[in-house]
Amino acid sequence: MNKFTKVCIVGKYRSTEVSEPIHQLMSFFQAENISYKVDSETAAELGLVDVDSTDVEAAAAWADLVVVVGGDGTLLSLARSVATHKVPLLGINLGRLGFLADISLSDMVESLRSVVRGEYEIDSRVLLETQIGGRGGSEVWALNDISIGKGHGGGLMQMEVLIDGRLAYNLRSDGLVISTPTGSTAYALSAGGPIIAPSIDCMLLVPVCPHTLSNRPIVIPGDSSVTIKVTGATDARVHIDSHTSLDIVEGEQLSISAAKEKVQLVHPLGHDYFATLREKLRWAGTM
Amino acid sequence: MNKFTKVCIVGKYRSTEVSEPIHQLMSFFQAENISYKVDSETAAELGLVDVDSTDVEAAAAWADLVVVVGGDGTLLSLARSVATHKVPLLGINLGRLGFLADISLSDMVESLRSVVRGEYEIDSRVLLETQIGGRGGSEVWALNDISIGKGHGGGLMQMEVLIDGRLAYNLRSDGLVISTPTGSTAYALSAGGPIIAPSIDCMLLVPVCPHTLSNRPIVIPGDSSVTIKVTGATDARVHIDSHTSLDIVEGEQLSISAAKEKVQLVHPLGHDYFATLREKLRWAGTM
Amino acid sequence: MNKFTKVCIVGKYRSTEVSEPIHQLMSFFQAENISYKVDSETAAELGLVDVDSTDVEAAAAWADLVVVVGGDGTLLSLARSVATHKVPLLGINLGRLGFLADISLSDMVESLRSVVRGEYEIDSRVLLETQIGGRGGSEVWALNDISIGKGHGGGLMQMEVLIDGRLAYNLRSDGLVISTPTGSTAYALSAGGPIIAPSIDCMLLVPVCPHTLSNRPIVIPGDSSVTIKVTGATDARVHIDSHTSLDIVEGEQLSISAAKEKVQLVHPLGHDYFATLREKLRWAGTM
Amino acid sequence: MNKFTKVCIVGKYRSTEVSEPIHQLMSFFQAENISYKVDSETAAELGLVDVDSTDVEAAAAWADLVVVVGGDGTLLSLARSVATHKVPLLGINLGRLGFLADISLSDMVESLRSVVRGEYEIDSRVLLETQIGGRGGSEVWALNDISIGKGHGGGLMQMEVLIDGRLAYNLRSDGLVISTPTGSTAYALSAGGPIIAPSIDCMLLVPVCPHTLSNRPIVIPGDSSVTIKVTGATDARVHIDSHTSLDIVEGEQLSISAAKEKVQLVHPLGHDYFATLREKLRWAGTM
Repeated sequence: MNKFTKVCIVGKYRSTEVSEPIHQLMSFFQAENISYKVDSETAAELGLVDVDSTDVEAAAAWADLVVVVGGDGTLLSLARSVATHKVPLLGINLGRLGFLADISLSDMVESLRSVVRGEYEIDSRVLLETQIGGRGGSEVWALNDISIGKGHGGGLMQMEVLIDGRLAYNLRSDGLVISTPTGSTAYALSAGGPIIAPSIDCMLLVPVCPHTLSNRPIVIPGDSSVTIKVTGATDARVHIDSHTSLDIVEGEQLSISAAKEKVQLVHPLGHDYFATLREKLRWAGTM
Repeated sequence: MNKFTKVCIVGKYRSTEVSEPIHQLMSFFQAENISYKVDSETAAELGLVDVDSTDVEAAAAWADLVVVVGGDGTLLSLARSVATHKVPLLGINLGRLGFLADISLSDMVESLRSVVRGEYEIDSRVLLETQIGGRGGSEVWALNDISIGKGHGGGLMQMEVLIDGRLAYNLRSDGLVISTPTGSTAYALSAGGPIIAPSIDCMLLVPVCPHTLSNRPIVIPGDSSVTIKVTGATDARVHIDSHTSLDIVEGEQLSISAAKEKVQLVHPLGHDYFATLREKLRWAGTM
Repeated sequence: MNKFTKVCIVGKYRSTEVSEPIHQLMSFFQAENISYKVDSETAAELGLVDVDSTDVEAAAAWADLVVVVGGDGTLLSLARSVATHKVPLLGINLGRLGFLADISLSDMVESLRSVVRGEYEIDSRVLLETQIGGRGGSEVWALNDISIGKGHGGGLMQMEVLIDGRLAYNLRSDGLVISTPTGSTAYALSAGGPIIAPSIDCMLLVPVCPHTLSNRPIVIPGDSSVTIKVTGATDARVHIDSHTSLDIVEGEQLSISAAKEKVQLVHPLGHDYFATLREKLRWAGTM
Repeated sequence: MNKFTKVCIVGKYRSTEVSEPIHQLMSFFQAENISYKVDSETAAELGLVDVDSTDVEAAAAWADLVVVVGGDGTLLSLARSVATHKVPLLGINLGRLGFLADISLSDMVESLRSVVRGEYEIDSRVLLETQIGGRGGSEVWALNDISIGKGHGGGLMQMEVLIDGRLAYNLRSDGLVISTPTGSTAYALSAGGPIIAPSIDCMLLVPVCPHTLSNRPIVIPGDSSVTIKVTGATDARVHIDSHTSLDIVEGEQLSISAAKEKVQLVHPLGHDYFATLREKLRWAGTM
């Protein structure tokens, strides 16, 4: 694989925990003669003054690798930027193994040493893009999921779900999660969905607390376009990867499809998806 | 069983659909020499002018039977009044069979003929009462359930659940439903709970989309006191029987226990709970 | 699409119910100048003497379309023959809509009139093939699913599940269902799996009553090879599409992968998968 | 509470692991001047020659406390004997915490010191008794559950479930678990049932992989009589607490109700059911 020569370093938002690993990363890249820039918010938080810092968007445009120190949430927030600039992303977790940030602090330097030399795997992840129809313009991207759900009032929502323009079903429920394979281990899993290997070209629809008990999770082709018409709701909300929330009102519709751009995750060679699942879901344990 | 001599008639809120059945009921009670009063809101909605009407609270205090024409929702809204005045409740549904309003329009007169003569069964249902601790005074009652859940922000809630003062578990989830056996066929069922026969002295706790997959529904003794401490939530809400919603903030706690008063439902002799389940849950059908 | 000129007709095994529709089919093909043969078991069951009948394997080799009158079970039993001979399959149900046999008797003649003229859609379905390792030779095919489960003794099974040669998880459970997308609406659905659109290139693994509650259904790529090592079982069984059952003992292993051959289902134009789901799963109904 | 003066000691079947703890128990009882007998199978397994040993039934009849060293399975196998003789049961686990055997080896002597002085809690557990109708005589008891399920053939079973003589539902499924509250954390939990606090007077019915998705677990009153008529099955089996299995054929029926006798479990004061749940179900952990 390609060697990396220009790295953008991003730390978890408003965290000083990342200080030591980010200093380690900078020393490492210096020693390896690899150029790097630090995201300006991270630099400001850590008081890094003699460092080449710039906003994450510009750094992503410049870099050929983005290294994130944080958790899955930090990676999620960078998904769109790295996808737009087609720059791969590598995630280091601050303690607890993540599904996305799957390199531990203790393995960080050793893993990066291999990665910058071109010893790594690339794992492409689909992004969803969505539009809330009646209101134009508001387009947002998700790496995990887009969900629609009841708001403060707490009443059941009613919606009509169309796939490729054709009625799939009418739903009365607390909500509906539309997830990528990546998101299948996030909110969709709590709502009763299956785990989906990241490389499968599909989307997952999981009703949240459906009134009709046979309204089960459905896996549909990755090139589907999903339309959700809100037919009944006193107040409802659209949530994007748990970082953005928007109102949606009765009569409006939400359109969701796969984005053209993908997120490329970098893993050390021999990366084992099932090992992560076993640890995160505690399969190893016996009751 | 006792014969009934003073009946309070209540119609579904803001519905004119109830007009014909309520006229039939009045004629029937007149013919049977049974006194009746009509809830004043129902009377106003239907334009009943020559009828003895009064507010539902006063009518419930006076009556020895409350007859409701509507659906389960209408019965739920009367639960506290009839429990306080220890007057039994009989529900007539306007079309679709209810779990509570289980007499159809076509059987209405015949069923009531038997009931007023003392041919009926009484089925006592527990009510939950709740207090939101930090704010004093706000006490509310539920016949189905009290649930706590995320609000507009859509983030996971964190709570500590205590039973009889002892930690049961810490929960990260969309919410938690605390249900009576009556409510086990309502929201709790959609959230993954079991069906509980109404006569069992218990409460049901059902986590909504829990982060930890082994956080399963739990049935606890009916005399338990449940305390829920909100330990993490940007905005959270308490919902009572789907008719009342209240804010609850991080640091506050919710206390729930069975009320002393019960709701007494009147059924014609031979009432069959499982027949209602079979019809409502479509068990009869084959896939 | 191609027109069909040579049709093999197969009726549900040991059913005389199929007599009238099969006579209608024969008249129809005769009128349309289309050659047909009748499966010899069907012909014998119905006492058809002046008809060109032959065993189903030979008829499938000769025909360019196989028409089945029966239910999904009848189609399942023909899957391997039609896949081997690359001849498409059209299913007519005898009453209740099937997931595979999705043409009703009342639409039969009209649908076939269009189909034989080339107005149809082809929907390719993956087959699974399996080998029980320690015993050589015994290779079997499934259109819905291959499941492994406890036998008479009723004790938990223990198995090691490998995907592409790598440990996925250790499982203690009643069993495990390995399903195609086609089978996702069959046994896998009862065991808690998701519905998977038939065109997605994947397999589904659904544990049956797993001891570890986080052992959830998993969707894996269609080109995966699954190996199941039975590490603990007093008696265990392998079931193929609910028509074949075999013993498997502790220490043996089961290998499953997609077969090269696929089953091609013929549908009238405008075929609507979600309409079938809505009817079969009673989504239309409201509780 | 009463002090204990005559103790029966039983070890896990065919295990030599129990040797050291049983020697510790004998020394302890000797030092405390408490009479004890050792189950003769345990004595034989461990080669105890100078010890008063007798078969477990006789020892249970003589003792005022039965102490078991093993796991939940060992306690289950003694349930009927101790219930018949109304002698309480105390369980020591050999390593992994049990739901029933909830005293660890490290706490064994200290816990028993308190218990024999009368410092303990009693926790009464319901037993189920069952009869397989068409064949007379065969009556069996369960502390966890009685389940009915498919055998070697692997086909769906069909049954008619009656509660107190009235049809509850027709079921097409892999099987049905009828569980006590004690058994709600055993097989019933794996099959999708709720957790039920042991003191609730109820039974739990959990369908195993039901064909109709709305066939959910049901909690019914403890004094119910459940009748299961096998209406379709090529081969079916009845399993009692995972230790006994029996054939049942089409046309036969199974009757289940609570036994009059109960099992009395002895716990040290301050026993915490939810602490056991948290540890066994790994609720403490975070994903």
